[in-house]
Amino acid sequence: MNIFPLIGIGISTLNSKREKLDVRYHIILTKDHEILNTQKIKLPEFEKLEDIVNETDEDDQLKEELSKLLSLKEGQKLIIYKIGKDDNVSDICEAYLKLYLLSLRICEPNSLDLTNIFTVLPNVAWTNQGPVDVDEIDLFRSKNGEVSVRSVDKFPCMTDYVIPSGVRIADASRVRLGAYLSEGTTVMHEGFVNFNAGTLGAAMIEGRISAGVVVGKNSDLGGGCSTMGTLSGGNDVKISIGEDCLLGANSGLGIPLGDRCIIEAGLYLTGGSKVEVLDSKNTITEVVKASTLSNQNDLLFIRNSITGSIQCKPNLKSVVLNETLHKND
Amino acid sequence: MNIFPLIGIGISTLNSKREKLDVRYHIILTKDHEILNTQKIKLPEFEKLEDIVNETDEDDQLKEELSKLLSLKEGQKLIIYKIGKDDNVSDICEAYLKLYLLSLRICEPNSLDLTNIFTVLPNVAWTNQGPVDVDEIDLFRSKNGEVSVRSVDKFPCMTDYVIPSGVRIADASRVRLGAYLSEGTTVMHEGFVNFNAGTLGAAMIEGRISAGVVVGKNSDLGGGCSTMGTLSGGNDVKISIGEDCLLGANSGLGIPLGDRCIIEAGLYLTGGSKVEVLDSKNTITEVVKASTLSNQNDLLFIRNSITGSIQCKPNLKSVVLNETLHKND
Amino acid sequence: MNIFPLIGIGISTLNSKREKLDVRYHIILTKDHEILNTQKIKLPEFEKLEDIVNETDEDDQLKEELSKLLSLKEGQKLIIYKIGKDDNVSDICEAYLKLYLLSLRICEPNSLDLTNIFTVLPNVAWTNQGPVDVDEIDLFRSKNGEVSVRSVDKFPCMTDYVIPSGVRIADASRVRLGAYLSEGTTVMHEGFVNFNAGTLGAAMIEGRISAGVVVGKNSDLGGGCSTMGTLSGGNDVKISIGEDCLLGANSGLGIPLGDRCIIEAGLYLTGGSKVEVLDSKNTITEVVKASTLSNQNDLLFIRNSITGSIQCKPNLKSVVLNETLHKND
Repeated sequence: MNIFPLIGIGISTLNSKREKLDVRYHIILTKDHEILNTQKIKLPEFEKLEDIVNETDEDDQLKEELSKLLSLKEGQKLIIYKIGKDDNVSDICEAYLKLYLLSLRICEPNSLDLTNIFTVLPNVAWTNQGPVDVDEIDLFRSKNGEVSVRSVDKFPCMTDYVIPSGVRIADASRVRLGAYLSEGTTVMHEGFVNFNAGTLGAAMIEGRISAGVVVGKNSDLGGGCSTMGTLSGGNDVKISIGEDCLLGANSGLGIPLGDRCIIEAGLYLTGGSKVEVLDSKNTITEVVKASTLSNQNDLLFIRNSITGSIQCKPNLKSVVLNETLHKND
Repeated sequence: MNIFPLIGIGISTLNSKREKLDVRYHIILTKDHEILNTQKIKLPEFEKLEDIVNETDEDDQLKEELSKLLSLKEGQKLIIYKIGKDDNVSDICEAYLKLYLLSLRICEPNSLDLTNIFTVLPNVAWTNQGPVDVDEIDLFRSKNGEVSVRSVDKFPCMTDYVIPSGVRIADASRVRLGAYLSEGTTVMHEGFVNFNAGTLGAAMIEGRISAGVVVGKNSDLGGGCSTMGTLSGGNDVKISIGEDCLLGANSGLGIPLGDRCIIEAGLYLTGGSKVEVLDSKNTITEVVKASTLSNQNDLLFIRNSITGSIQCKPNLKSVVLNETLHKND
Repeated sequence: MNIFPLIGIGISTLNSKREKLDVRYHIILTKDHEILNTQKIKLPEFEKLEDIVNETDEDDQLKEELSKLLSLKEGQKLIIYKIGKDDNVSDICEAYLKLYLLSLRICEPNSLDLTNIFTVLPNVAWTNQGPVDVDEIDLFRSKNGEVSVRSVDKFPCMTDYVIPSGVRIADASRVRLGAYLSEGTTVMHEGFVNFNAGTLGAAMIEGRISAGVVVGKNSDLGGGCSTMGTLSGGNDVKISIGEDCLLGANSGLGIPLGDRCIIEAGLYLTGGSKVEVLDSKNTITEVVKASTLSNQNDLLFIRNSITGSIQCKPNLKSVVLNETLHKND
């Protein structure tokens, strides 16, 4: 799917040096399609907007109109930003536009070039009164009274910018803008979803989805379970989880998993773990590195509680998500 | 204990379609007793109120008075709600009233009929400006300026509705309304308590108490420990923890535990785990499924760090909570 | 380093009985040095201030000036507090001043006398409208409208009082005032740092740093990993982590660790764990208690996935933090 070129229109909050802290997009549109229009604003044609971005047309009147429609305030700046094609992230406007595309479910995780995103995003104090420059927080507080700081980070919480339909997110602090949550996904209090990561269908998430990790539909990540990321900790392989899988509570996963697989509660399976492979009669047929079992279907991983060895058996159970729990209307 | 019938009086926040998003109860009373009266409001008799609920008496004057006393605002609705007897949850007013009864410590977990509670509760965006309809958040923001979304969930945080006496809750996002926390309970940052779950005495909670799980007095749930719930993940048995127990950090529990039991840090004990039972001389006497040890007292569960087997020994140590830490005044 | 005597000037929020709920220090100074001056206020000499503290000089004019400069409001009190020498914490003003010294990186963890700090700190409801007496929250809400309670605790979130330079804290609820975070530290959503604990150099923290625990530079605490504290759970030994260490995700640590050590993901190493020690040829040379390996360098701890035994090998890998991730500007 090639969504580009596209244009985003929004508002950036500035620090006292007029540097951008964030961008809140209200409108995103391609040539043929409105992807986002939070306030149902009547818009000029794409080409017209493109001309403005390319400065072939200095349409100050349009800008003024948009500023009014979006209620631009003191300390804010109107943003009209075009991404021509998918390339390294060049500035904060592009970073936010791509994070929006992910959280609006326009682009799936790992489908966009996010190189340099950590470099272009400033570290911001996210407060109940909006984004504040970290170095200006004392000043801001003295002017604005009580300020509750929720996070000091390069990425904001997704729900302060995008709330996708049909999802529950019990603790909004734990889902970054740029997470991709499919309809029917519940992220419980212990769940976490990084940017450029998420669920490809309805799923119950009580564990941590690291950057780059995707979870298939009807899968269940138990409380406190871990998926190895590639950003930190030395893992190279991109982890994914197929459909109808269950990662038990406090378990961990260091290989990509096929469909209908189960990791027993409390078991951490790394790629280098040696695993006894058992057949359906419970006979050990071979001992292999876990990484050789990557992407295979219908596997059950346990630690034998008598011998202490990690074992892999054919998985005969099927995982069924609790339907009531997953009604997010 | 049969607390019913009872009547709750409160305020509901409405969305733009005049649908209820929550109910904040200010007054709860039975025939003989005031359970809650946040503002010490002078009230008419129960019978009088009952008449109003049953619409035998259309006392518009009383309603107006109550609306004034409770500072009813635009976009809110006065609620006078009676529960005659404990039955399936029929609507949002009943759901909130029962969640209040739990968090106010009037009814213990598992003592109320909560059937249908997921169905009657709407999914709500919980913000620093109150509950907002998920579909109306953009509109709300454009009218009300900065809005920080804390959670998108069917249940609100308990502390935004009820703060029981003598408890500490380090991260309020992690305790749902409907949690039952006894005096002297501390829920640390990594702790979590679901609705219809909690502590029956002073306790230190740094792990997760799933729906339906109760913890006895003087027990300590270590950081990140897991108790298996029955809502998700396929467990059928209701887990409970006796008195003077210790679940070590990052451990997990899949059986109900008696008094004075210890689960070693990092060990996940599921009902199906085979366990070597040792006597006081450290001799293995039998191998059993963990579930057969349910509800027994004075057990210590470890994973032998040389053989890798899960073992159960008589527990001779007693757990003592740190008294200073537990002074919550 | 002896920083005392020093004086702190700030503002305390009071409850309706005029009892102090917190202290926000705006100025901290020693005889020779300004440690903190949030608003670049021109100050009188230390001796002059000391006279006021000691009440040899009742300089009401100065107090009035300071009250004005710090925008003292109804329900607040000006605090001028001196700590002569480091001793038991005698009241809330001293408690906050010491917590500031830690979070401002003036004093390292375990270098201050914090005895009695739990006793002198009141339990407070921390809201988006500031600290509120737990018993007065209903009253406060009826006067002030929507109040979002973030925490009910003796300690506030650090970032509501101090944001040290060059750090990221993805979920501010999880770092208490009194945490010591060195430049270049990132605390991810699953990270946690208690008071009197922290990092002595740039570090990636996705696990829990208990009170009293310190982490050396370039170390990486994986998601959900646990460090045993001494406040709760029965551990006596103060845990520390050297430089260039890696605690894997969901691992746990019950001994002090030297430099360049690795704990495998999912392994909980307690002091009492028996450990097979292997040489560089993978031969078991001895079996020891983990505590005997305390503070040694270049160790790799794993659980053998076939035998189930905990093993310690020479660590030949070096841990390299992801540089981009650690740029916190």
